[in-house]
Amino acid sequence: MQLTAIDRTLSAVAHPVRRRIVEQLARRERSVSELVELFDISQPAITKHLNQLEDAGVVERRAVGRQRLCRIRPQSLRETAEWLNRVERMWGDRLDALTELLTRDSPDARQR
Amino acid sequence: MQLTAIDRTLSAVAHPVRRRIVEQLARRERSVSELVELFDISQPAITKHLNQLEDAGVVERRAVGRQRLCRIRPQSLRETAEWLNRVERMWGDRLDALTELLTRDSPDARQR
Repeated sequence: MQLTAIDRTLSAVAHPVRRRIVEQLARRERSVSELVELFDISQPAITKHLNQLEDAGVVERRAVGRQRLCRIRPQSLRETAEWLNRVERMWGDRLDALTELLTRDSPDARQR
Repeated sequence: MQLTAIDRTLSAVAHPVRRRIVEQLARRERSVSELVELFDISQPAITKHLNQLEDAGVVERRAVGRQRLCRIRPQSLRETAEWLNRVERMWGDRLDALTELLTRDSPDARQR
């Protein structure tokens, strides 16, 4: 089964530390060392998480002087959010249709 | 780090097969054997995926006669979609604020 961009985004954010990194980067761009401090996790561990987020297109890094700044790429999150919204809505629509069908065919409805 | 409902939902759907099971169940309720047929995966494998989806609160199963019917629980998806929407929006708002700041302080803007 081929992996899509949505599969990759979901895998990237489906880790509590990576999800919290994404939350922090949504507030503002941060350097790798700021993230290390914030999360009290070793630099290699943070770098590994950032690599996974970058591979999935969720985060991008840029060099500013000697710093490496990280920020999120919101378009990757948007597509995944839209998938979740769609699936949730589809099911809601099915339930609405079913409720209508049941109401229409019930003796109560026929009496009206 | 404590796992939240959102972490559990993300882990559950962060697998291509489970994500496609969720898509199918958003269309309509299905029996386990229908899913086995649809995905051409062994029944134990499908059951394992369904267990993970059920543990995360994404799917629920009910017995109807000798069948086990599966459907999604949209509220779990809604909360996760809202998290993604929020994170994406936060970053968008930061960019808007930054653009405004840059525009306001630029010589072009002062000339207007």
